[in-house]
Amino acid sequence: MRPMVFALMALAIVVCVPGLTFPVSGGADEAAPISGIEIPSGYRDWKLVSVAHEAGTLNDFRAVLGNDAAIEAYRQGKVPFPDGAIIVRLAWKYTASEENNKAFGREQSFVAGAPINVQFMVKDSKKYASTNGWGFAQFKDGKPDGKAELKTCSPCHEPAKGNDFVFTHYAPTP
Amino acid sequence: MRPMVFALMALAIVVCVPGLTFPVSGGADEAAPISGIEIPSGYRDWKLVSVAHEAGTLNDFRAVLGNDAAIEAYRQGKVPFPDGAIIVRLAWKYTASEENNKAFGREQSFVAGAPINVQFMVKDSKKYASTNGWGFAQFKDGKPDGKAELKTCSPCHEPAKGNDFVFTHYAPTP
Repeated sequence: MRPMVFALMALAIVVCVPGLTFPVSGGADEAAPISGIEIPSGYRDWKLVSVAHEAGTLNDFRAVLGNDAAIEAYRQGKVPFPDGAIIVRLAWKYTASEENNKAFGREQSFVAGAPINVQFMVKDSKKYASTNGWGFAQFKDGKPDGKAELKTCSPCHEPAKGNDFVFTHYAPTP
Repeated sequence: MRPMVFALMALAIVVCVPGLTFPVSGGADEAAPISGIEIPSGYRDWKLVSVAHEAGTLNDFRAVLGNDAAIEAYRQGKVPFPDGAIIVRLAWKYTASEENNKAFGREQSFVAGAPINVQFMVKDSKKYASTNGWGFAQFKDGKPDGKAELKTCSPCHEPAKGNDFVFTHYAPTP
């Protein structure tokens, strides 16, 4: 673990407020993430779990990828996920494609537009015991989100308890 | 190249009908693909290019992946794609997720449902010279589609000539 991350995690633990479900430090503007989770190198090339679209106010397009430990567990249909599994959700603006619509001759095509943000779920049953074994992090333009954004992650994932708190299912191979 | 594929390609060339834009054999029920393209091993684990949704009668969810040669060209923003590049489009039914909607508290979540089919574009500027350097294949439940389905591939990709006949752009990394 890099010294900076370790120092920040120690700080986060020291200032942790009982009642919050996640160790947090002071603000949203730190250079390093409050959860101690940094952007894993090469995550953009991880294997595909599935795709999704959230309509409404989110109005995004999503791809969910996993590192090898996560993919292995997905394929075996095994929960809980093993320590070391990381699942990443990439989000882009849900964007109509004029180019594709012209080719199809009708308004029907939607593609990934500008990037919105990226979220990670990192499994470590000891380190993240207070949040059901998962650490959460979100980055926008490479910068980590802070306390306010992350404290809703774990409670929001509670309904997926039967799937080890993971919403996304592995898309069957066509 | 496997002997069976070579034999099939030879057959396809022999029976090729002038005026069609793709070498085709007799029917849609062959055990091997008419284009000589077989399902590349491990394609489900290739790197992500982007995601898409086609509404209307297609009503599908798509993930587009690429082999290393395709991804390398995408990242360098280079066209034409080099020989050996393969782009795959996986499609699933566009499906509302009751589970996610319950968690969100509103009807907004769509996920990949049952698999529909998988399509490949294989770049070989000599072998597929008559179809702008790309060979096309489509498989459903592991079985290749035939003449009728494939003869529309290349003409349909004509509008994307400026991007070497490839519609899908590389989604920016969030």
